[in-house]
Amino acid sequence: MGSKYQESVRVWLPLWALMLEVVSIVLFFFFTSYSASVSEQKKLLRNYRDFQDVFIMATLGFGFLNTSLRRHCWSSIAFNLFLLALGVQLAVLLDGLLIEISLRKMVIDMPRIQRATMSAISVLISAGVVLGKVNLLQLVIMTLIEVTVFSATRLVGMNYLNMDNHVSMMYIHMFAAYFGLTVVCCLQKPLPNASEDKDQTATSPSLFTMLGTLFLWMFWPSFNSALLDIAEERKMAVFNTYYALAVSTVTAILMSALVHPKGKINMTHIHNAALAGGVVVGAPSNLIHYPWLAMVLGFLAGMISIGGVKYLQACLQQTLELHDTYGVHYTFGLPGLLGGIVNIVLMALQAQGIDKSTRGYQVLINVGALGFTIIMGVTSGLLTGLLLNLNIWKSTHKVHYFDDQSFWKFRRLAVGY
Amino acid sequence: MGSKYQESVRVWLPLWALMLEVVSIVLFFFFTSYSASVSEQKKLLRNYRDFQDVFIMATLGFGFLNTSLRRHCWSSIAFNLFLLALGVQLAVLLDGLLIEISLRKMVIDMPRIQRATMSAISVLISAGVVLGKVNLLQLVIMTLIEVTVFSATRLVGMNYLNMDNHVSMMYIHMFAAYFGLTVVCCLQKPLPNASEDKDQTATSPSLFTMLGTLFLWMFWPSFNSALLDIAEERKMAVFNTYYALAVSTVTAILMSALVHPKGKINMTHIHNAALAGGVVVGAPSNLIHYPWLAMVLGFLAGMISIGGVKYLQACLQQTLELHDTYGVHYTFGLPGLLGGIVNIVLMALQAQGIDKSTRGYQVLINVGALGFTIIMGVTSGLLTGLLLNLNIWKSTHKVHYFDDQSFWKFRRLAVGY
Amino acid sequence: MGSKYQESVRVWLPLWALMLEVVSIVLFFFFTSYSASVSEQKKLLRNYRDFQDVFIMATLGFGFLNTSLRRHCWSSIAFNLFLLALGVQLAVLLDGLLIEISLRKMVIDMPRIQRATMSAISVLISAGVVLGKVNLLQLVIMTLIEVTVFSATRLVGMNYLNMDNHVSMMYIHMFAAYFGLTVVCCLQKPLPNASEDKDQTATSPSLFTMLGTLFLWMFWPSFNSALLDIAEERKMAVFNTYYALAVSTVTAILMSALVHPKGKINMTHIHNAALAGGVVVGAPSNLIHYPWLAMVLGFLAGMISIGGVKYLQACLQQTLELHDTYGVHYTFGLPGLLGGIVNIVLMALQAQGIDKSTRGYQVLINVGALGFTIIMGVTSGLLTGLLLNLNIWKSTHKVHYFDDQSFWKFRRLAVGY
Repeated sequence: MGSKYQESVRVWLPLWALMLEVVSIVLFFFFTSYSASVSEQKKLLRNYRDFQDVFIMATLGFGFLNTSLRRHCWSSIAFNLFLLALGVQLAVLLDGLLIEISLRKMVIDMPRIQRATMSAISVLISAGVVLGKVNLLQLVIMTLIEVTVFSATRLVGMNYLNMDNHVSMMYIHMFAAYFGLTVVCCLQKPLPNASEDKDQTATSPSLFTMLGTLFLWMFWPSFNSALLDIAEERKMAVFNTYYALAVSTVTAILMSALVHPKGKINMTHIHNAALAGGVVVGAPSNLIHYPWLAMVLGFLAGMISIGGVKYLQACLQQTLELHDTYGVHYTFGLPGLLGGIVNIVLMALQAQGIDKSTRGYQVLINVGALGFTIIMGVTSGLLTGLLLNLNIWKSTHKVHYFDDQSFWKFRRLAVGY
Repeated sequence: MGSKYQESVRVWLPLWALMLEVVSIVLFFFFTSYSASVSEQKKLLRNYRDFQDVFIMATLGFGFLNTSLRRHCWSSIAFNLFLLALGVQLAVLLDGLLIEISLRKMVIDMPRIQRATMSAISVLISAGVVLGKVNLLQLVIMTLIEVTVFSATRLVGMNYLNMDNHVSMMYIHMFAAYFGLTVVCCLQKPLPNASEDKDQTATSPSLFTMLGTLFLWMFWPSFNSALLDIAEERKMAVFNTYYALAVSTVTAILMSALVHPKGKINMTHIHNAALAGGVVVGAPSNLIHYPWLAMVLGFLAGMISIGGVKYLQACLQQTLELHDTYGVHYTFGLPGLLGGIVNIVLMALQAQGIDKSTRGYQVLINVGALGFTIIMGVTSGLLTGLLLNLNIWKSTHKVHYFDDQSFWKFRRLAVGY
Repeated sequence: MGSKYQESVRVWLPLWALMLEVVSIVLFFFFTSYSASVSEQKKLLRNYRDFQDVFIMATLGFGFLNTSLRRHCWSSIAFNLFLLALGVQLAVLLDGLLIEISLRKMVIDMPRIQRATMSAISVLISAGVVLGKVNLLQLVIMTLIEVTVFSATRLVGMNYLNMDNHVSMMYIHMFAAYFGLTVVCCLQKPLPNASEDKDQTATSPSLFTMLGTLFLWMFWPSFNSALLDIAEERKMAVFNTYYALAVSTVTAILMSALVHPKGKINMTHIHNAALAGGVVVGAPSNLIHYPWLAMVLGFLAGMISIGGVKYLQACLQQTLELHDTYGVHYTFGLPGLLGGIVNIVLMALQAQGIDKSTRGYQVLINVGALGFTIIMGVTSGLLTGLLLNLNIWKSTHKVHYFDDQSFWKFRRLAVGY
């Protein structure tokens, strides 16, 4: 098994990464240039700050979010950085090539890089499900497929299904969660003992995970308002996200104490439920005109998230043998789905001056867009899972990706992380 | 004792939190709306950035500041987030209901949320004193009382005692420190052995505490300048805070080496004294026209802070049985008091064109405002302490708030935090 | 040996620091005032945000970058903060006194503090090389010399060698790396055994180091664009830095897997190589008009960095007995040198409308400026190294700077940091 690892990952990973970088540089050479418009440059400052918030979420937030599994804390941060760097390059190219299909050079500006970073976050979410079950080479393949499919999904949704830039991006949580869950369903199951062992370590929480959670928590309002252009909508998105996050955090603590037989608080519940509030108001954030509605949604998200982890997780694990270590389904999947439904309801309620049949047609289109996103996530996840199951890049679960000597020294010294 | 814990915290905490959330949502439903003015929206960007700095301080800074006590590092971060989320909701409502007493709907805008976050920081400071001595239910009660009293104190100070928005907010350090210290005085003393045990663990410092300290340190200039409207004063507040922090940091290192018999440096001194410089220039930050004055104040703050920890702490612990584990008195209390006095002196010196008796009257009013803030802090702290001493929500000090299994696994694995 | 430590560090450190603070306050008293111009104040907001990014890099980024050495993680963070606070004060004074030589009071504004913070970063880079080999008193001496010489070098370069503000600052990586390496060459060698012991611990990586790396990684675009005034150049500097960082990160992973006999990834490689991309595009960041060029530079930087650590480090350690624990030479030194050369080439290529001989003269001047910076770094490093070798402030390597009791408890508890 060790030799397999060496053959596949050792040789192929550098080759693949090198090839990808060369292809990427060549594509950038032929197809990109910097914007020369002056008006664009004046807006740089504002765009740069908005972009930085999203970038901090991607780098620090998702990097540290999945560090609680003792064996994979290194993988989590280093792979997160690697996948982000790779995914952003790919997404910038796809954003230009797919969305503005043309032969002239595409212009690189801050909004494009911001959209690319947000698209690359889909990989970071899915990586939370598959982490520890695939090797780095498989993650690279997954990145290539997921970013491409997500960009294509957004393109189709925006061109044919009446979605705007904001909503099609906010479906990312749902897309990424169901993509990752489908991939992990397809992967070969580890031996029961190994799984048992991993489960145990999974319960040891980490202050670093809390650090990642807090970074996501703080900058979530920037994420939810990033693609809104009208100042009015932007402001409401920011406020609604704050309210939803505040309430889902309080709900997380109270639900966690409630579901525990002795009334104690489980830190993994906090990680999941505190963020669920930000996910749920993502899509409808610009349609919520009253703080109380955002608060109610945050409350529901917190309940769904903890209820899901407590009651649904064991059920899914038995029936589908689905192993969702970090509860991605309950942090991103279900709250994202709820947010999508709320978005459709609010759009229908707020559509004025149109007759009933048009409104019905609109609702149907919106439901179709929501369903299309999920179906694309599941289908591409299935494809990816089957592809990753091929023997060519398989390695065993017992092989570490990091330098043995330092890794074991690290484990011996800092077993607690 | 276990059963007591179950009855009080297990049942009452979720019920209380649920009830508070429901009441909060209902109040928001009836009394709040989003601002629709266009001029407001244009200022969103600037306000949003200013707010974010304060929010990072509240979430990450105070969250990680009190993680050095091994047994309470989890409590510190999770409770901090919970209290912040609860306190901000309460403070937004109070800010609207108390300060703009009216029956029409109050408008939610960024400055209001920023003021609310700053008011909620009073709870986070006080929590540093009582952490490990009260349970979460008691902390919820404390939050309700402290945020209400602090908002009322600011209201009275601004309406009747000639304080402006900035100064009344900057007295928060003093208010919160003396509130917390009074509460802890009133609480039943733990058994000497238990206290001994906690003291021991308290000396084990933590890189996470340093992370919290650095986040507070970096964004303190934003805190001190947040409520100043004139660009000139804002700029001076920022610069003065940087200078005071730089000098208090250098002073912290040199004083720490000086007071140690072998010239070694104590990390807890650094945590305390590095921040004292930011506290001391809080109130007078807009009145200091020369960098050297801010530097002298930073120097004094560093000396007071470390001198206090070294010589006053043992004295207070013996006479009042006051157990100030994290040195909140020396980081926030005494430097805040010094800052208040400096503020009064500078206001008297800079008041021009008024005769002597008016000036004397003004000084008297200012001293009254300072004293009023402290008295309100001590009185409400006393009330809170007596209330928390009631048997209804008492639990023992041996009960953990976190899921036992994961907690103990965590401790076994990561004893170093 | 213990007594020596007490005599030198215990007595002299507080005295030196106190004296420096007093001198600093006196100089600020006589020579500084706040700006009163109104136009300046309007730009405060933008300048403040730009400054904050650099400040976060200096405080958190460099603070946590060198925490992987178990015995020095505390020193790294606390000393970093101390040296930063000291270095900024000194650099503000030097910036005013050297660059604007005059007897009138100099005006303190945000750009000046930003430049001072950037200059102080030179000490933080050099400290990465000497950490664990000198005591705090020696670091204070080093700070005084290095900041002064770096300011003087910039002054000479800008006045006589045709360098602009941006390029002369971007040579800081190179200057600081060679300064630190020369100092460490001059210092007395520790006993072979001790060195062995330190090497061992050095391989245990740390999540905190990754945190520092990520903070530097995220805000590097702000650093590289901080001193550019034209919006067009600023924008390109930001974009180029992002591309270079993304590619150097991918390269870091692939090179690290390639050079390891079993294809595993070494975390210290990631720390080094991920940042090298930001260093290499520092100087030429405003001259690169195409993303692909920045990507190629990032690729080269990643290769040089990991190749250097793998093959050059052992060689240098044997021949020069150079002990570069954190690989500062390969993160900052070599990529900075490459960036300088690329800058000269691009300037020559882009110079239009001038005849050949003028262009040749210009290239010569630029090469001279690059060489001058390195020579100043090496010369002043040599001087500093010889000065620090004097017996007056020497202490042994076995003495800890932190309170014994808490330090040992900390080590016992948290050996993993």
